[in-house]
Amino acid sequence: MRRVRVIGVGMGPQHVTREAADALRSVDYVLAFAKGEDDPLLEARAHLCRAYGDRPLVVVSDPPRDRDHPADYARAVRDWHEERVAAHLQVLAERPGDVGMLVWGDPSLYDSTLRIVDALAQHVDLVVDVTPGISAPQLLAARHRIVLHEVGRPLHVTTGRRLREAIDQGQDNVVVMLNRTVDLAGLEDWRIWWGGNLGTRTESLVAGRVGDVLPAIEEARERAKAAAGWVMDIYLLRRPSTAAEGDR
Amino acid sequence: MRRVRVIGVGMGPQHVTREAADALRSVDYVLAFAKGEDDPLLEARAHLCRAYGDRPLVVVSDPPRDRDHPADYARAVRDWHEERVAAHLQVLAERPGDVGMLVWGDPSLYDSTLRIVDALAQHVDLVVDVTPGISAPQLLAARHRIVLHEVGRPLHVTTGRRLREAIDQGQDNVVVMLNRTVDLAGLEDWRIWWGGNLGTRTESLVAGRVGDVLPAIEEARERAKAAAGWVMDIYLLRRPSTAAEGDR
Repeated sequence: MRRVRVIGVGMGPQHVTREAADALRSVDYVLAFAKGEDDPLLEARAHLCRAYGDRPLVVVSDPPRDRDHPADYARAVRDWHEERVAAHLQVLAERPGDVGMLVWGDPSLYDSTLRIVDALAQHVDLVVDVTPGISAPQLLAARHRIVLHEVGRPLHVTTGRRLREAIDQGQDNVVVMLNRTVDLAGLEDWRIWWGGNLGTRTESLVAGRVGDVLPAIEEARERAKAAAGWVMDIYLLRRPSTAAEGDR
Repeated sequence: MRRVRVIGVGMGPQHVTREAADALRSVDYVLAFAKGEDDPLLEARAHLCRAYGDRPLVVVSDPPRDRDHPADYARAVRDWHEERVAAHLQVLAERPGDVGMLVWGDPSLYDSTLRIVDALAQHVDLVVDVTPGISAPQLLAARHRIVLHEVGRPLHVTTGRRLREAIDQGQDNVVVMLNRTVDLAGLEDWRIWWGGNLGTRTESLVAGRVGDVLPAIEEARERAKAAAGWVMDIYLLRRPSTAAEGDR
């Protein structure tokens, strides 16, 4: 039986919980998946490993593709998820001991680590536990000093791609994650609380009426991209209260 | 200018982040609101204060009501929120220094602390910051080792009172909080991941098809009530996948 600990570490080292620190110290090594040598979270993960227990960080990368040999085409098109699972299985086979898997943010929200672990468990006997971590919506709310919903009202969390569905359903408070762009045409009267690269040195915040602050958000996104090389953003949209009262 | 730090401490001392610990150590005293002498979270809060900085815990209670004097009737019916604000203002006036306000879970979700702070800020000049904490939905997901939604799908968070609205809207993944009862009639084929008194010694978990596990949930609720004197529960409901595919 192998022990796998899925460890949510929040949006930066300041968010590491006592439980997450103990979990990091308890494992034999920590597994991290890297999209490339320049994955911006790789150094942050290494820092966490050094800070808590100093266990080795084993980096799993995309298996190299032999583009010169058409016979490898099947492999080249293999689903990303399966590749990750195979790469993880290989490390488990080569390295004995308890494994920690670091998750930026929280493992319960838009994160694939637990799906990988479920897939691993079909090949290897695993004992799994999970440590929650501070997630992006919570840090967004903390930075803006807001509750994410009005008293007793629902909160809807979705992706940029599905935002319009949520609007059409009549949602009043929508947290939007995984944005490639911020497309808010027609929502000029809504309020927005936006955060880019939260928890990092290039963090920025914008809040106000969508129609008023959209240029500032676009500017902040460009600034973050220029400074960090990437932008990860999240926002809360709130329906104008008159419309919300009129509608229901 | 008074400094008020709203500090999310998660669902137990194991969830205190480095940032929350630092915030607790930085304040002159910690304010906690108690519903009565036997408020179950009061001792837990005192424990946290002792563990991180050993700052005094100032407990704010409901102002006593003079039930013998009808002239005080107006006061007796004064809105709970206003009473809390007045009680907090009195402590701020009597005790100088930076104030910490402990929040069980996270300040951004079904918590009134930030609304009280907003009301205080209308009377006193305040500098406010907020530290996020692990929330109940995250701990529920961690205990059951699940992601709260299917790949790329929305997550809807609501209250027991509003559950039916969410079902009627067509939500597939619904986290339900603030339940007085667990009324799931007609949802027998949905899947449920339930947790009671999460993070405490009387914690219990149940998962399965609603129709199969509802008796076990009722039993677990009764057990928790008997053991702890109270039950606070939360659950994730997931629509049967065939229905979800058929609907859209």
